Amino acid sequence: MPITLTSAALPVFKTALANLAHCLSKAEANAHMRQFNPDVFVGLRLAPDMLPFASQVRIACDAAKNGTARVSGLAAPKFADDETTLAQLQERIAKTLAWLDTVPADAFDGREEQDITFPVGKEATRTMKGEAYLKHWAIPNVYFHVTTAYALLRHNGVDLGKADYLAGAQALA
Amino acid sequence: MPITLTSAALPVFKTALANLAHCLSKAEANAHMRQFNPDVFVGLRLAPDMLPFASQVRIACDAAKNGTARVSGLAAPKFADDETTLAQLQERIAKTLAWLDTVPADAFDGREEQDITFPVGKEATRTMKGEAYLKHWAIPNVYFHVTTAYALLRHNGVDLGKADYLAGAQALA
Repeated sequence: MPITLTSAALPVFKTALANLAHCLSKAEANAHMRQFNPDVFVGLRLAPDMLPFASQVRIACDAAKNGTARVSGLAAPKFADDETTLAQLQERIAKTLAWLDTVPADAFDGREEQDITFPVGKEATRTMKGEAYLKHWAIPNVYFHVTTAYALLRHNGVDLGKADYLAGAQALA
Repeated sequence: MPITLTSAALPVFKTALANLAHCLSKAEANAHMRQFNPDVFVGLRLAPDMLPFASQVRIACDAAKNGTARVSGLAAPKFADDETTLAQLQERIAKTLAWLDTVPADAFDGREEQDITFPVGKEATRTMKGEAYLKHWAIPNVYFHVTTAYALLRHNGVDLGKADYLAGAQALA
């Protein structure tokens, strides 16, 4: 079967977030092993003027969710950005994945050339065609925040390897 | 025009690497501004058991180059992994981009279901279909190393924002 715009993006969002959830599970187990509260991870930053771990997870979720909503025209649920625990961040990922699972397998198809206008920063917007937006904005945005979350955990001693990011729970096999 | 397997992946590789080159340029300018040798960046790590900055750049290049070669069947150039300066890493990216520019715009098409076998770690291999390999391995692998390189620079005080990663030199506009 030839690739479609939906098949190029929707499974990618789901896999990236499922693998992020897997990395959070390993972080929780690691905190228990090292005998500290796993929720400490939630506020960690790689630099004082970078967003904390919680925001990396939230934005990874929202980049996938809002990217999907914008191209498909479907309404996406909104979440409160009030997570303070690793368990709540896991819930955020799970809710995002549950919504992505409701999106039809052809939701983006035929929208390759459609103008997508989206916020950039707090005041500006940017407009890209549907295909370019998914390929060059939404997907790299998801990977940026998933990888930054991974880097934060790894920097702080969690026993992750790239296979956890690429293959998630299948990395265990 | 509908999306194709090549259009879903080849421009993504090129944009990610061009934006990485842009981040390296900003790192060099930042080092000059802060009056230290920009080549210090080459050896930095986010954790003692993570690969250094040079490897992040090399693997980002190779994931794009080797992913392209494996799916297209084209022979890719090999590079020596001996860069010790930021300028040499820029050259690595430039050589990779120059080779990617020679790849035909339909090089992956029709290879969606073709088995791609590739090394995983030092001894194992893994086999995936062409489409799944590009979507779930080669592309996320490139973003992983580009983002890790970005995170390393950002962690060490380089004035980067996400727009530099997403839009490269166009972030300046």
